Amino acid sequence: MTDRQSNLSGEDSLIARYFRPLATDPGAFGLMDDAAILKASGDDIVVTTDAIVEGVHFLPHDPPDTVARKALRVNLSDLAAKGATPAGFVLTLALRAADDAWLKPFARGLGEDAAQFGCPLLGGDTVSTPGPLVVSITAFGRVPKGQMVHRSGAKPGDRVVVTGTIGDAASGLDILKGGAVAAVLADDAAAREMLVGRYRLPQPRTALAGAVRDYAHAAMDVSDGLAGDLAKLCAASGVSAVIDAQSVPLSAAAATLLACGTIGIETIVSGGDDFEILCAVPENRFEAFAQAAARAGVTVASIGTVIAGPSVPKFLDAQGREIVLQRLSYSHF
Amino acid sequence: MTDRQSNLSGEDSLIARYFRPLATDPGAFGLMDDAAILKASGDDIVVTTDAIVEGVHFLPHDPPDTVARKALRVNLSDLAAKGATPAGFVLTLALRAADDAWLKPFARGLGEDAAQFGCPLLGGDTVSTPGPLVVSITAFGRVPKGQMVHRSGAKPGDRVVVTGTIGDAASGLDILKGGAVAAVLADDAAAREMLVGRYRLPQPRTALAGAVRDYAHAAMDVSDGLAGDLAKLCAASGVSAVIDAQSVPLSAAAATLLACGTIGIETIVSGGDDFEILCAVPENRFEAFAQAAARAGVTVASIGTVIAGPSVPKFLDAQGREIVLQRLSYSHF
Repeated sequence: MTDRQSNLSGEDSLIARYFRPLATDPGAFGLMDDAAILKASGDDIVVTTDAIVEGVHFLPHDPPDTVARKALRVNLSDLAAKGATPAGFVLTLALRAADDAWLKPFARGLGEDAAQFGCPLLGGDTVSTPGPLVVSITAFGRVPKGQMVHRSGAKPGDRVVVTGTIGDAASGLDILKGGAVAAVLADDAAAREMLVGRYRLPQPRTALAGAVRDYAHAAMDVSDGLAGDLAKLCAASGVSAVIDAQSVPLSAAAATLLACGTIGIETIVSGGDDFEILCAVPENRFEAFAQAAARAGVTVASIGTVIAGPSVPKFLDAQGREIVLQRLSYSHF
Repeated sequence: MTDRQSNLSGEDSLIARYFRPLATDPGAFGLMDDAAILKASGDDIVVTTDAIVEGVHFLPHDPPDTVARKALRVNLSDLAAKGATPAGFVLTLALRAADDAWLKPFARGLGEDAAQFGCPLLGGDTVSTPGPLVVSITAFGRVPKGQMVHRSGAKPGDRVVVTGTIGDAASGLDILKGGAVAAVLADDAAAREMLVGRYRLPQPRTALAGAVRDYAHAAMDVSDGLAGDLAKLCAASGVSAVIDAQSVPLSAAAATLLACGTIGIETIVSGGDDFEILCAVPENRFEAFAQAAARAGVTVASIGTVIAGPSVPKFLDAQGREIVLQRLSYSHF
């Protein structure tokens, strides 16, 4: 409001050019109304919101298409962990300028992901800012009435299960920041690229949403670090857990870095940005869950057991000794 | 991610202290899950999103409680114009620091408005930023299936109607920026306060949502300026309009400023931040609409007529001459 301009159509033409093609859902009204519609259905609407800030969640020189994809995917990851099928999203974009060279690949990446994950753009707001770019997305999913999977609900005896591999993104970020990881992997471009990719492009486990709903007592996505997120899940469930650190699934690159001592187990379990699903599955349902996951093309690993009690979950080493973690996860403040 | 800290509970305790008390809806799960639920119902869910940026949409020294209220109210204004009853909202807050002196009144103002307008906090995301504060809200409303009021739908012969008064917020902003308005109203503190209040604290016409749904062919809220927003409504409806500029409802203060020549009609009709409802009501339904508005405690004024044709709506002066507007509304880019 302090920098009024006479160009009536700047904001509108930006939206028309870059974002209208993404608004494929009839409820988006081609982004030409003031609001969108999520049509009445028998399902509950699951709502999640996550923002990413330049210099905090992504780096100023990250490719615009991966910034867009990451902004959407961190939300899709939440929906999957709640057992929800994507239904659409709204986008708030705070930009310093309408820079075509940035907006074009940003919108392209966003559109490709929206199509891939079946999560169309429903609406948004584009505002100017003198500061860092902020991309805020609120995403919607549908679950059968009353069937959202909660953080609470884990029971003693449940298996603690994670998808994919843990700790890669933290090493990917280390590479982008010129840390020690890059030097150790100097001869392995493929490993470096994989790790950076894990930081820039989370793989939301959308395909696993149905199995999470069908089999998990409790679930959340691992965004701030496995140890801290497991502590949250346990606290919400009124339980604790014992984790076999050696069972935490690692990529070959992360295993190498751990073996060389370049990173410690703490970097793995508290690094954050994994965007895998952490869930508690009853022991007698684990086999069926694992089979459903295999059918969905998602690897799952049992890493420990839920136990009774209020204590912070313990990570044990190969000798059964507790690993003391200085830090469980990332906090903004 | 570039500024990781070891304080596990900073972000969580901030949320617990300031925002959990606002999460009164059962679907918010006390902000202790990763997502919220909008319960299945026979209604369509109307979704709108608006962000405000420090230094752009609000001033750095604006009282935190009015910043919060404005962020919510601009969204409530959209819901009302679409005929929707508020159902809840999610909040994204990008903050430089967890400053209690700012957060406490911010949360208090937000909570009071959430209660007043029946729009509880459902969830959110709190992130750190090195830049200006950004407050992004996505709000939800309910309308009976298929009954959202659109920008499109206005028909030739409809009355063009606005609520409240137009142009006050622009003069309020001028006062805050030390412009000419303050000097002209130097002896009238009440008028200055009213105008500043109109800029800082929009009055969403939530009470009128039902009447808009029942009587309006088309509606939107006036956020970027009456002239530009009317042009958008007409374009979406495939019509034009003729407005009698003298019928545009003004506060006494704005009328004085206009009479003195401190501001021109262009400032009134393109100033923005009015957050009134603009709608097209069929001639034969106007009387009933006006009565419903009176029952809702909202003043409405008929300011012109929808006509056929593709041209930009015309504003006519007392002599019936077209007023040439250099600028129709505010654009961010």
